[in-house]
Amino acid sequence: MSNDIKYDLAILGAGPGGYVAGIRAAQLGLSACIIEKDTPGGVCLNWGCIPSKTLIHHATEYAGLKDLETLGVRIDRTGFRYSDVHARSRAAAKTLAGGVVSLLRKNKIEVIKATGSLAGPGEILLQNGQSPAKKVMAKNIIVATGSRPMAVKGFAFDEQTVLSSSGILALTELPGSLVILGAGAIGCEFAYVMNAFGVKVTLVEMGAHILPAEDEEAANILAASMRNHGIEILVNARAKSWRKSEDGAIVAIETGGKAAEIRANRILAAFGRTPNTEGIGLETVGIKTDARGYIATGDYCQTSCKGIFAIGDVIDTPALAHVASKEAEIVVDYIAGHAAAHARIDLSLVPSAVYCEPQVAGFGLREEAATRDKIKFRKSVFPYRGAGKSIAIGKSEGMVKILSDPDSGELLGAQIVGYAATELIHELLLARSSELLAEDVGGMIHAHPTLSEAVMEAARGIFGKPIHI
Amino acid sequence: MSNDIKYDLAILGAGPGGYVAGIRAAQLGLSACIIEKDTPGGVCLNWGCIPSKTLIHHATEYAGLKDLETLGVRIDRTGFRYSDVHARSRAAAKTLAGGVVSLLRKNKIEVIKATGSLAGPGEILLQNGQSPAKKVMAKNIIVATGSRPMAVKGFAFDEQTVLSSSGILALTELPGSLVILGAGAIGCEFAYVMNAFGVKVTLVEMGAHILPAEDEEAANILAASMRNHGIEILVNARAKSWRKSEDGAIVAIETGGKAAEIRANRILAAFGRTPNTEGIGLETVGIKTDARGYIATGDYCQTSCKGIFAIGDVIDTPALAHVASKEAEIVVDYIAGHAAAHARIDLSLVPSAVYCEPQVAGFGLREEAATRDKIKFRKSVFPYRGAGKSIAIGKSEGMVKILSDPDSGELLGAQIVGYAATELIHELLLARSSELLAEDVGGMIHAHPTLSEAVMEAARGIFGKPIHI
Repeated sequence: MSNDIKYDLAILGAGPGGYVAGIRAAQLGLSACIIEKDTPGGVCLNWGCIPSKTLIHHATEYAGLKDLETLGVRIDRTGFRYSDVHARSRAAAKTLAGGVVSLLRKNKIEVIKATGSLAGPGEILLQNGQSPAKKVMAKNIIVATGSRPMAVKGFAFDEQTVLSSSGILALTELPGSLVILGAGAIGCEFAYVMNAFGVKVTLVEMGAHILPAEDEEAANILAASMRNHGIEILVNARAKSWRKSEDGAIVAIETGGKAAEIRANRILAAFGRTPNTEGIGLETVGIKTDARGYIATGDYCQTSCKGIFAIGDVIDTPALAHVASKEAEIVVDYIAGHAAAHARIDLSLVPSAVYCEPQVAGFGLREEAATRDKIKFRKSVFPYRGAGKSIAIGKSEGMVKILSDPDSGELLGAQIVGYAATELIHELLLARSSELLAEDVGGMIHAHPTLSEAVMEAARGIFGKPIHI
Repeated sequence: MSNDIKYDLAILGAGPGGYVAGIRAAQLGLSACIIEKDTPGGVCLNWGCIPSKTLIHHATEYAGLKDLETLGVRIDRTGFRYSDVHARSRAAAKTLAGGVVSLLRKNKIEVIKATGSLAGPGEILLQNGQSPAKKVMAKNIIVATGSRPMAVKGFAFDEQTVLSSSGILALTELPGSLVILGAGAIGCEFAYVMNAFGVKVTLVEMGAHILPAEDEEAANILAASMRNHGIEILVNARAKSWRKSEDGAIVAIETGGKAAEIRANRILAAFGRTPNTEGIGLETVGIKTDARGYIATGDYCQTSCKGIFAIGDVIDTPALAHVASKEAEIVVDYIAGHAAAHARIDLSLVPSAVYCEPQVAGFGLREEAATRDKIKFRKSVFPYRGAGKSIAIGKSEGMVKILSDPDSGELLGAQIVGYAATELIHELLLARSSELLAEDVGGMIHAHPTLSEAVMEAARGIFGKPIHI
């Protein structure tokens, strides 16, 4: 086929896995193309992390008005336009998507607007309406097609009453009330945002506490804060079904063996994510997926078909943008023969981050898991209120918690809940990833007054005594 | 004298040097007392870092109203009470001072409310109106009497027209206009606060750029931001004198050989700080001070008089609370025979922090000094706008700058200017203090989307290529 183009690397999908793979490939001298049917940047940038952070930012600003009222500023909220907040979230996504396009262009990576599917080892068939269909030939292929909101029986997304996380990001008007099913990161972030803008929010979680993947103690601090701000939280509660009501929906819940009903204008179903692994020709090259749709991979994210790699949300590592980006790097370094530091991601070094206020961030061993698995640990907790800065700026809600190995003194895990937690976590993560000791963090001078002093004090609690408690 | 009390350690002054020394002493099993004539916590806590951070926090909140107006919220500022903001700054100071009192009590450290002066080795005379005057006997003494705003000829503080940093923190009403002499950390922070609350601010700096102790490139980003927000900045400008006007003052300035005049309701003279080393009996024990009033010390902050130590603002290390606290620890560990990590503070590991927005933080080698001293370095700069989070939350002003040793790859210094810079700096400081390489920071997964990703990308720029630029 004379129209075929040959590359060192062809990438299916231009999300934080795919576009980073492309840039990294170019940096290492490989020719690369990316096949993307939609806007570069993927869900994260266009319908996930980025626009939601814009909403959170404005929600915090808006919630802060109450404080200014106590200082004598008079506020009239009647003209407030949520549609403008929405527009800003779209503008942020657009700016960044434009940034990704520029980066790809600057790095001379061809972006092919098409749906691609694997047609054989080293072959991708392009479905972009051209006849005869074009093929892309490449020595190596990365599947980085990402994921979509998980549909759960009985809660099919109509994006009118039952919204997905993408659907709620598309809303240009606030509902009067919202029930959120699933209190993971996405559920908690939208609970925070909507509540801050005055929406009546009920948050429903099947597990024993919100943020079931995070430390219980940390999650409970967030839960207490949410309840203080008027969010209703139901845990150990399962959503069974919903039916239309005059002004929205009635959701049937089962909690502790009892049935209950929640009325709300809209439902956000935030049950998790499903990998986009259908219709991309995996069967053509003999790559199988598990019952949940994930592609199995080995070292360097290799699939069962030589030369085809899979990264990001299509494999069973945490569905996080920063995981996808790191996997992209691991694969491309491997393909380019560049010494990669690791063949697989060390999951104990993957930070989790929830961006509502207070924020929650963590990595490594969780106390619940340690107790369950009888892993010995030393624990130190330092409350935010022990750091002067938190009092000075009125952000005293929160804590830094560190688990360490009682023998070696190495950090095993950490959780931070509180203002700026998603930034503060990196000092401890660096300590963990570089195999430093709590002494290295606790003995280091930290600027006063900062919240990082709480990190220092928590570290001191591991090997000695903090000063401010 | 039967009334005398004996301690392992007596401390003159209960600021962040003295009270930390006391707590540390108690932790190590020493008996200790602190002699303090004023509220525990020192200038930092009562009339410095802490209340000023409360003002900055509310200034940022108040400035954020403009953004909310663009979203349709109607704001009437006429009833705004700065006096309430002031009251909150006092409340924060009071809360923390109360916290220090509790900590001292919990650690069983006696706090003696008196002015103390050295009466001999191991002897402190208490001047608290009791007759006969009491003495405190102690095996060791720490002088931690701190500093006060530096008075400069022609600009004596009357705290009416010419304010010190303490004086401006005592204001319960905003002036219409303010001229600030000296654009160090204090000058810049008050310029930011006052401007945010609508005060017309002129900032006058003798040096070639604001924040003369910081990196020029970083300082210029702050200066550009300040000018954008309406602050007038004069550099290479020397304040000569002032005279009263109808509504305040007229300050005579010399800049580039030319004379100019600035009119303002008030003057903030922020020229620096002077050690409190007079009237504390140094001469009695033969301890000399230099021309600027600093006490000379050797290893473990020992003065020329055996058993007497001096820490914090009375010695010639940076006048920062976190330096005083670390020196306290070094001295007490030494006295207690506890293995101290270091005999002196490594000044290259002392973070500087300026808390206006954008914030400025840094440590170690500055580019200007490296160039001047012909120190070889590799430089990497990553702009905040390259981190998606900064776009999402509208904080794209700023950069992370890293200087490294071109041979060993070790970090030599770093500067961050931008949102949350004073927290972000600690990841790089940990890398420096633990002798890690840029690869350790740049190769670590950072949570997306965070501003810490800019730190990671700047580190990547040292040993390879960042992705997002």
